[in-house]
Amino acid sequence: MTPANDTFLRALRREPVTHTPVWLMRQAGRYLPEYNATRAKAGSFLALAQDPELCAEVTLQPLARFPLDAAILFSDILTVPDAMGLGLSFATGEGPRFARPLHDEARVRALTVPDMGALRYVFDAVACIKRALAGRVPLIGFAGSPFTLACYMIEGSGSDDFGRVRRMAYARPDLLDRIVDINAQAVTAYLDAQVAAGADALMLFDTWGGLLTRSAYERFSLRPMRAILGALRPLHDGARVPTIVFTKGGGGWLDAIAACGASAIGLDWTVDLAAARARFGASVALQGNLDPLVLTTDPETVAREAAAIVRAAGPEPGHVFNLGHGIVPATPPANVAALVETVHNVSREILRAGRP
Amino acid sequence: MTPANDTFLRALRREPVTHTPVWLMRQAGRYLPEYNATRAKAGSFLALAQDPELCAEVTLQPLARFPLDAAILFSDILTVPDAMGLGLSFATGEGPRFARPLHDEARVRALTVPDMGALRYVFDAVACIKRALAGRVPLIGFAGSPFTLACYMIEGSGSDDFGRVRRMAYARPDLLDRIVDINAQAVTAYLDAQVAAGADALMLFDTWGGLLTRSAYERFSLRPMRAILGALRPLHDGARVPTIVFTKGGGGWLDAIAACGASAIGLDWTVDLAAARARFGASVALQGNLDPLVLTTDPETVAREAAAIVRAAGPEPGHVFNLGHGIVPATPPANVAALVETVHNVSREILRAGRP
Repeated sequence: MTPANDTFLRALRREPVTHTPVWLMRQAGRYLPEYNATRAKAGSFLALAQDPELCAEVTLQPLARFPLDAAILFSDILTVPDAMGLGLSFATGEGPRFARPLHDEARVRALTVPDMGALRYVFDAVACIKRALAGRVPLIGFAGSPFTLACYMIEGSGSDDFGRVRRMAYARPDLLDRIVDINAQAVTAYLDAQVAAGADALMLFDTWGGLLTRSAYERFSLRPMRAILGALRPLHDGARVPTIVFTKGGGGWLDAIAACGASAIGLDWTVDLAAARARFGASVALQGNLDPLVLTTDPETVAREAAAIVRAAGPEPGHVFNLGHGIVPATPPANVAALVETVHNVSREILRAGRP
Repeated sequence: MTPANDTFLRALRREPVTHTPVWLMRQAGRYLPEYNATRAKAGSFLALAQDPELCAEVTLQPLARFPLDAAILFSDILTVPDAMGLGLSFATGEGPRFARPLHDEARVRALTVPDMGALRYVFDAVACIKRALAGRVPLIGFAGSPFTLACYMIEGSGSDDFGRVRRMAYARPDLLDRIVDINAQAVTAYLDAQVAAGADALMLFDTWGGLLTRSAYERFSLRPMRAILGALRPLHDGARVPTIVFTKGGGGWLDAIAACGASAIGLDWTVDLAAARARFGASVALQGNLDPLVLTTDPETVAREAAAIVRAAGPEPGHVFNLGHGIVPATPPANVAALVETVHNVSREILRAGRP
């Protein structure tokens, strides 16, 4: 069923729209007092992410405030390695931690694709959100990229430099191949199940692919992402599910990323959007790319910088407005309101003027 | 006076060499036990950096172990803002901290180019190192880029995201212009004085320019670096002092960086060196770009990865081998030995084969 507002899906297919669709990475998150209230009610981030009803509640919170053009499943990329038995936890005030990281070869050898039953709570959340959305806007499902998941699985937590991972890429590429290949199979099944539960589009978050050399990026990040995109089940009507691939720090490799088979490529804020649209806009949609720190300034600055991005994207079809990374907690919600309003208004003007 | 081994200077001028010169960012540092001993003797990092004799001692330590083709002044980029009165300190186990950061407009308005007399200890260190080197290899002087200095001056310390700086770039670009312009004047005087004291080449470290948008990078980082390069005093013989500009994370903007006026451009490890040489090698020398984490593996892996970089650079003149960022403390010195030997041997073969 086509959502009432299908602007986001049309932009991903590079079809004409009357305004540029906008959604924001981490649009349901700590900058919203109502999110913090729900999280407090749940007791912890993980308890929240594992409760389908509460996931639906926080997923819809930003949509109640702002006329966003898409919702995104509230979840975490590390659900998949948790289902593999690595033992995920979030210490208060710290990042994620695995009790059983891939610190030795035996653990890597023992790694297998998990039963999707262990991730049932995520698919229940998708179905629950989908009901709550009632067809207003599309719902984006997502997963971490095989390499980005591998980063946390090997390191055991977040890291300044993911030194263990980079060392493995050079000294034991065979082990890293094995990890990302298993991750690719797991992510494919995970995303297929999200679509079966109601997701209208899918995004792969490759947060750490930008740490690699060009050739290691091809081997350990882009190749397994390409494998996922090629293996996803088609929709009921035989069409491909729309997909977005986002490698933070991948601005130097856009030639390769743009050809990976995704409907859209996410851009971080370091990429010149006008140049990227000129170079790749005829073959792939682009998503981005306002610096999230702009949202911590003031409504006038937000409006000016957001309008500059919309103008840089120009009138050709195939732009989804987003940030270049997730919203930061210090963002005043009033700045998000100014952003969404500006993107809609400025793009309406540009698209009207651009029409023959 | 031309050093006995002038391979490094020849490579910067894109003149033929018989082996690829190699030096390593942070080659004098914590991975060397003798460095840690000297630092302990000095009492603190800052005491070490302010003692010209001890600076000479640690600068020469890696040269005693490895046949490196250049020495680099042992110092810190934050000497310049310290001389501006910001009050630099290094807490044990933490990074740098300024007692009087640029947290309000009044402090920015009061900022001025410091008297170079306050930096006399650095120029004394250059002279002292130069005497100790006795003409064996060239000595590289350096400074932080105006933007990278501004990052620490505005934030007051290191930071995950330099949020204050990025906010200023959007909301108060006039203030950031003022800071980087004053920094550019200060750095020009600072580098001129290093050359007067004996530095044979100069490097600008732009560690944080890669955090910016393309247009903000041009305005706040590349433009002031270009100003410095254009303002440096020529050498006694009227020639320009050889210069290297290194923006970490600048791989997406190499077209602009390669044209900034420097003799050489530093590349981090995410850049495909063969592609960069093909595209920019005829107009500028390139320096880099082994991932420093490779040096934390084993001598065989180091040799294989270093050889791949030398082969990617090819036989055309104008490559200086280096890492894509500084040596990490966990580096075993034996791996550095394997690296230098590999670069020299493999490049000798390639350069012999490449000669008509």
